[in-house]
Amino acid sequence: MANYDRFLSSTGRQLAESAIRRMGTVVAGAADLVSFAPGYPAPELFPWDELREISARLLSGSDSDTLQYGPTRGYGPLLEAIVALSAERGIAARRDELLITSGSQQGIDLIARVLVSPGDVVLVELPTFTGGIAAFRNAQAQLAGVPQDADGIDLDALDAVWQRERRAGKTIKLLYVIPNFQNPTGALLALPRRRKLVEWAERRDVLIVEDDPYGSLYFEDVASAAETRPLRADDPEGRVLYLSTFSKTLAPGLRVGWMMAPASLIERFETAKQSTDLTSGILDQHLVHEAVIRGVVHALAPKLRALYAHKRDVMQQALRARLGDRLTWASPKGGFFVWATLPPGWSDMALLERALAHGLVFVVGSAFFVDGTGHEKIRLSFSAPSVERIGEGVNRLAAAFDA
Amino acid sequence: MANYDRFLSSTGRQLAESAIRRMGTVVAGAADLVSFAPGYPAPELFPWDELREISARLLSGSDSDTLQYGPTRGYGPLLEAIVALSAERGIAARRDELLITSGSQQGIDLIARVLVSPGDVVLVELPTFTGGIAAFRNAQAQLAGVPQDADGIDLDALDAVWQRERRAGKTIKLLYVIPNFQNPTGALLALPRRRKLVEWAERRDVLIVEDDPYGSLYFEDVASAAETRPLRADDPEGRVLYLSTFSKTLAPGLRVGWMMAPASLIERFETAKQSTDLTSGILDQHLVHEAVIRGVVHALAPKLRALYAHKRDVMQQALRARLGDRLTWASPKGGFFVWATLPPGWSDMALLERALAHGLVFVVGSAFFVDGTGHEKIRLSFSAPSVERIGEGVNRLAAAFDA
Repeated sequence: MANYDRFLSSTGRQLAESAIRRMGTVVAGAADLVSFAPGYPAPELFPWDELREISARLLSGSDSDTLQYGPTRGYGPLLEAIVALSAERGIAARRDELLITSGSQQGIDLIARVLVSPGDVVLVELPTFTGGIAAFRNAQAQLAGVPQDADGIDLDALDAVWQRERRAGKTIKLLYVIPNFQNPTGALLALPRRRKLVEWAERRDVLIVEDDPYGSLYFEDVASAAETRPLRADDPEGRVLYLSTFSKTLAPGLRVGWMMAPASLIERFETAKQSTDLTSGILDQHLVHEAVIRGVVHALAPKLRALYAHKRDVMQQALRARLGDRLTWASPKGGFFVWATLPPGWSDMALLERALAHGLVFVVGSAFFVDGTGHEKIRLSFSAPSVERIGEGVNRLAAAFDA
Repeated sequence: MANYDRFLSSTGRQLAESAIRRMGTVVAGAADLVSFAPGYPAPELFPWDELREISARLLSGSDSDTLQYGPTRGYGPLLEAIVALSAERGIAARRDELLITSGSQQGIDLIARVLVSPGDVVLVELPTFTGGIAAFRNAQAQLAGVPQDADGIDLDALDAVWQRERRAGKTIKLLYVIPNFQNPTGALLALPRRRKLVEWAERRDVLIVEDDPYGSLYFEDVASAAETRPLRADDPEGRVLYLSTFSKTLAPGLRVGWMMAPASLIERFETAKQSTDLTSGILDQHLVHEAVIRGVVHALAPKLRALYAHKRDVMQQALRARLGDRLTWASPKGGFFVWATLPPGWSDMALLERALAHGLVFVVGSAFFVDGTGHEKIRLSFSAPSVERIGEGVNRLAAAFDA
């Protein structure tokens, strides 16, 4: 039987693929490719010794729960630890407002399934994270893009888009934002806008999905922890559904993230998660819990900030030296990405094709735009490659331009 | 804001909860409860020493991929190992027909999302696994039940139900079956029926979802490996989507299962998985891979068969001694469950209420029936409790009857 198309659901027929994951597949297949594509964390700071020691204790056999099925809501002590972590971020969360997810991506997916009916509008930043685009599209959302500037989402434009969609008779349920070191722009949403954004959501009766994987990865020379204060910390009405993860602050191979939402919604997300994967990895949750309470996560954060700031410097210096006359970009204050504008006459796709021929991969800017624009942009991740590979990658990018 | 109902999607409003997971929540909250409820594997055979040794090597830091994001399709060497495992089960699978899932439950969920449009009919056994019911219902499938007998699904009844649904104008896409030691009945689908079932699917143009978590857990006194031969092993046309897992043969805390389907469908499932959780746990996949290639999984299988056969004996002896005049059941030839019929005048819900008061929990039979019947049945899991607790639980069940 060659053709299974008639068995596909409406979702199955129009599945959206994450452009970043596709790039990841390209990378896996090629030899000596420099990858500026996926936002992978730096492997040189994975806490091997600590996790090895923790796993040896967890696998002693003294607690059989470590390898057994566990509660869908998550491992209780880890939920408690996240309550404490949240308090450090200014968030007064209760345990019944939390759900452990198999990475933040699952949080976006659960929100899409439980809240988005086909045709509902989800407002997103222009540009935004491709995994968010894919999850909302797979719930058959209509995505409406809102421009950003250097300080994050443009609030006047946001309301204008809301009004436009409303006039068109649409149901507008969600706004998906990444306030801290946005993916892909690296923008940090200015503090006054944060307060206004929550007020806007209350006025317009919209829920905010706040995706915060990079909050603790600010660069200390240009940003502070205070500037990364989550929207969820100042959310009196319960408008904000908050997502975060240990993928960037510990290791992504342990698939442990969390979502925080009003308790009545968390119950729904938990029920949806039940039929999705029963429970997130139990050994992973125990490993993360121990890493948090032993202080491994806390000790790592300043090292990560310093390492990524250094890699940012290395990439920017190389870009300025080799491509300063061609690329322009705003220096990121945190996170993983340089978001660069191409010179007139260049397109992201054409440059990627040349770059691949020179052994370099990055993500085309247009992949992050839900309105078909962005072909003058490219996203260069400096997080995972070594300092040497960053230099080599920029050389290859320059060669791609010169070819 | 107290009420979020207006934000729910059509899916979110009618989320189906797994009755087994709900029982699990009950168990977690009570002291000294004997649980015959969830189908948890026996913790006494978790291979602690082997996994501790493997994790120590994996976390040496020599391979940074162990803690990094990985390919959505799965860890390559694990895919290869599953090709080899499949061959032992009689299945000639290619690597491009495989996808690693975060447990089998995710396989069911991906199938439901990619193949089931709202209103499509999914044929299921009467009774069947509650996690399957929940996943298909959450894709807004209409579930049509097909009776079983001691040898598994009734093929004449199957075709009659198919014809009935067809006459009603329905689209019938899938048949979901658990041929080996069915959950909850424990039935083993007879070999001649297996061949006929695949022929039926070809004739009626239906895809079969074959869920096989218990295949290697046959009881050697009454069953053989040959009798568990998967439908997928004799499937010339590509009608069978096969699901299995390491949850029952290694440990469920490592969330690693797999699905096997025609390559063109696997690509769709992979794309759907991308936006669901990006990738299954990477450390988990490395741990499972090492456990397979070092022979841990193979060495464990006969021990598991012997232990579960012993626990079956213990439960059946206790039931015969204490409740032989009240309960009837067919002795299972493998798997985790005794599926018992209550005496006339008793209902599953009333008995459960009494049992809880006596410190025992099990799953009510009606939870497994999509047609509202089954109130004269209960499912008693003998897999997880110790031999002593099995005896104690049967005593409590007898006390519940006598109360």
